[in-house]
Amino acid sequence: MKSIIKVLHEPELENPILIEGLPGIGNVGKLAVNLMIDELNAKKFAELYSPTFPDHVIIEKDGLLRPLRNEFYYWKKDDNFSLIFLTGDYQSQSVRGQYELSEDVINFVKKYNVKKIFALGGFATGEVVEESKVRVFGSASDSEMASFLTKNGVILEDKGVIVGITGLLIVLGKLKEIQGACLLGETSGSTLDANAAKAVVKMLLKLLNLEETDIDFSRLDQKVEEIKQAIEKKMEIDLFEEKDLELLKKKDKPSYIG
Amino acid sequence: MKSIIKVLHEPELENPILIEGLPGIGNVGKLAVNLMIDELNAKKFAELYSPTFPDHVIIEKDGLLRPLRNEFYYWKKDDNFSLIFLTGDYQSQSVRGQYELSEDVINFVKKYNVKKIFALGGFATGEVVEESKVRVFGSASDSEMASFLTKNGVILEDKGVIVGITGLLIVLGKLKEIQGACLLGETSGSTLDANAAKAVVKMLLKLLNLEETDIDFSRLDQKVEEIKQAIEKKMEIDLFEEKDLELLKKKDKPSYIG
Amino acid sequence: MKSIIKVLHEPELENPILIEGLPGIGNVGKLAVNLMIDELNAKKFAELYSPTFPDHVIIEKDGLLRPLRNEFYYWKKDDNFSLIFLTGDYQSQSVRGQYELSEDVINFVKKYNVKKIFALGGFATGEVVEESKVRVFGSASDSEMASFLTKNGVILEDKGVIVGITGLLIVLGKLKEIQGACLLGETSGSTLDANAAKAVVKMLLKLLNLEETDIDFSRLDQKVEEIKQAIEKKMEIDLFEEKDLELLKKKDKPSYIG
Amino acid sequence: MKSIIKVLHEPELENPILIEGLPGIGNVGKLAVNLMIDELNAKKFAELYSPTFPDHVIIEKDGLLRPLRNEFYYWKKDDNFSLIFLTGDYQSQSVRGQYELSEDVINFVKKYNVKKIFALGGFATGEVVEESKVRVFGSASDSEMASFLTKNGVILEDKGVIVGITGLLIVLGKLKEIQGACLLGETSGSTLDANAAKAVVKMLLKLLNLEETDIDFSRLDQKVEEIKQAIEKKMEIDLFEEKDLELLKKKDKPSYIG
Repeated sequence: MKSIIKVLHEPELENPILIEGLPGIGNVGKLAVNLMIDELNAKKFAELYSPTFPDHVIIEKDGLLRPLRNEFYYWKKDDNFSLIFLTGDYQSQSVRGQYELSEDVINFVKKYNVKKIFALGGFATGEVVEESKVRVFGSASDSEMASFLTKNGVILEDKGVIVGITGLLIVLGKLKEIQGACLLGETSGSTLDANAAKAVVKMLLKLLNLEETDIDFSRLDQKVEEIKQAIEKKMEIDLFEEKDLELLKKKDKPSYIG
Repeated sequence: MKSIIKVLHEPELENPILIEGLPGIGNVGKLAVNLMIDELNAKKFAELYSPTFPDHVIIEKDGLLRPLRNEFYYWKKDDNFSLIFLTGDYQSQSVRGQYELSEDVINFVKKYNVKKIFALGGFATGEVVEESKVRVFGSASDSEMASFLTKNGVILEDKGVIVGITGLLIVLGKLKEIQGACLLGETSGSTLDANAAKAVVKMLLKLLNLEETDIDFSRLDQKVEEIKQAIEKKMEIDLFEEKDLELLKKKDKPSYIG
Repeated sequence: MKSIIKVLHEPELENPILIEGLPGIGNVGKLAVNLMIDELNAKKFAELYSPTFPDHVIIEKDGLLRPLRNEFYYWKKDDNFSLIFLTGDYQSQSVRGQYELSEDVINFVKKYNVKKIFALGGFATGEVVEESKVRVFGSASDSEMASFLTKNGVILEDKGVIVGITGLLIVLGKLKEIQGACLLGETSGSTLDANAAKAVVKMLLKLLNLEETDIDFSRLDQKVEEIKQAIEKKMEIDLFEEKDLELLKKKDKPSYIG
Repeated sequence: MKSIIKVLHEPELENPILIEGLPGIGNVGKLAVNLMIDELNAKKFAELYSPTFPDHVIIEKDGLLRPLRNEFYYWKKDDNFSLIFLTGDYQSQSVRGQYELSEDVINFVKKYNVKKIFALGGFATGEVVEESKVRVFGSASDSEMASFLTKNGVILEDKGVIVGITGLLIVLGKLKEIQGACLLGETSGSTLDANAAKAVVKMLLKLLNLEETDIDFSRLDQKVEEIKQAIEKKMEIDLFEEKDLELLKKKDKPSYIG
């Protein structure tokens, strides 16, 4: 079985930029992208189902089932500027699958003429730092992008490795003429690092010249707090749907189904 | 190697409904489907062999070998109503294989114009409950189906996950315009939970408007009892062929062959 | 990469019968087939290389490298009767690979019009029995073959499983109109069970109406004895090339190379 | 996803010989090939990216990302003699992947009319020997090559196995009419065995009739020493780029990024 991409509707986008945020260290990338999706009111237009994801399905709060998925959202600032967001439940669960999933994503966004990718994630320093002091590290597909990052205050990494789709998207994208960068928020490595995510979003807005955009960052703290409480109660939830949280408060049934 | 589907004969079926019951938690789905196959005298019409199953073959009681398989049976109530049953030895043994197997099944039953699937399984609550109190949980492909389940007494789940082919069939089926639901019998998780299976069958008959159908539920208890005795004697048997059980009583040779 | 079959030369064979003996329990099948290859002076005509084998290569005694392989030999009794032997270094090392390798073998021998397969192996009873009392168990692709086995003294198995290519060849062969049987020599499970192998060969000769063929069974004892001594010295050897054994006596260099 | 080979430019080469040196025991092959690349000033002309490599990417010292890769370099002595070097970050990380990668390499170099391969690696004897006494072991694709090796002082191995791409390239190459040999430097098995690598390079130069070529072997000792110091400091580095080492001296930031 190959990956299936279900296009919900075809947006008209002018050379959009892809912003990736899938689960990873501190869930920094996922938290960052989902904050932007919520605050910019981005619209979902496609879902990707891959046999390289785990073999379970999700029961949603209305009793409906859905496959594990990655999701594409878009946001149009105006006729000349738009973003595509990639988020989802999982990265691929096998090494080879990560390459396949990355290639699937690249091939899909090429259809929308994507020429730039920012892939968001965490950089685990093992230290807890204050929100205002969280650093954003970065790496680039080419030296033009590297200079651009540095000029804007991103700390350019110069050694090490980046694991998973965050890095693969940039290097495989480059092979198809897509410029890109990883933006990695400094994190202690906790499961849900809202501060790292906020730092990454702020940097990204600066890089995209969107600093004037109205984003309520405090909503992310609130969401993370609720998720943490839910996790303490050993509940399974979709990290980014607040209605789940309301639901959780009313219920105490066991959630494992096989 | 791709999966092989061997069609034994082509039944004429009018928009049949697929009922899936493969091995899983408590073997609830498999027990349920096999009870229906036996009691309705459903006819086998196809076998599926997949390289995602284990790499052994089965020695049958007549000394004949057969591949591990999934089996398709059909039952025609009349010219306007028919069922296809899917049961078998195994689900796929790899994550990716589960997606492939599910896709193989969907593609096959699409040829018979299947537009609805009920996938049967167990819901492990960890509690042992009386036969008359066993609950049936469910999840659906769409809200029409969800309402239908609720109206008939199925307890709609609203969080958690469903592992394996039971859930994958519903979500991959939906992508091909097939409506579906999982029906999960409450089980303590024992290897063979006849009570959970009976509860699922009763609910399914209600949903299918087949409550008048003559089913001898006590035969399932008897069969499970015999299987349990055989297992105690460390015998390998096909769970659903009673002739095996008769055979077992006469023999005591070791059964492992390599 | 797909399997590669290198045909060394094309024999003219009239509906040959395939005899399989690859490594397995007690190496019964491999020992049996190699005894027949040696004693009948069968000629190698093809080699199969599969990416499902391990990823190392063999250094032969002349310093030449060769891939891990399965080998096809043929023996022509006369214009109306011939055998193809399948032996080799390994079965596939993955579950899916076993299905693929079996399919590769079936597809290859179909070109030579093979209509019957005997797959040889061991049946681990855990007991050590005298050479003259070793039983041969069997299973068949169809009832005609089952009767034939029984009539000739093969003990027909009626439950259990057969692991690996020995069983898969028979069931996948049957899907392509090839009749077949497994012949399994009773073995305690020791690494090299010459007695089980001899029993299987004797039974096979009877089934093939070749009882008059001149086979020196004592050579197998001698070979197994030499191999065991070599193994004690922790030497790596090809089990079935006597020149290796001569070589071993002269050397004591370490054999692991990476 | 299939492997991607990115050709940087097309050299004009007359029947070049392929010299392989990827990571392995003692990194003997990689050290040897990289010494030759550096000292002969060989030019990179192609990169190979394979989904059978690990799923991370490398951050280079200029802050740029690159995929894990194998690299092809060429060196032209004159119009009649040229070499292609294969080195890189990794061999494939799965058994099947090793076969696929080997086939990819063979297919690629066939385009340049490669008719001979020397695959370099280590032979772990477990003993530490003086630099001047390091032996070079070998195995060959055919007896002509075996004689040639022996005549030049290579110790011909006559049993054992060779694990990984070093051996696979020779046996799969032979299937495509490419002659080849493995040259394995005696090593205690340390991570970086410069002496084994030097011995292999010296032997290879002799075999290629390039003994007069000016190679500064002491540079390898110096490089290995620097790498070892860097490893002690738990730094991640590219083994063969000296600029990394300079960089390392200035920095102490943690290098793990996820």
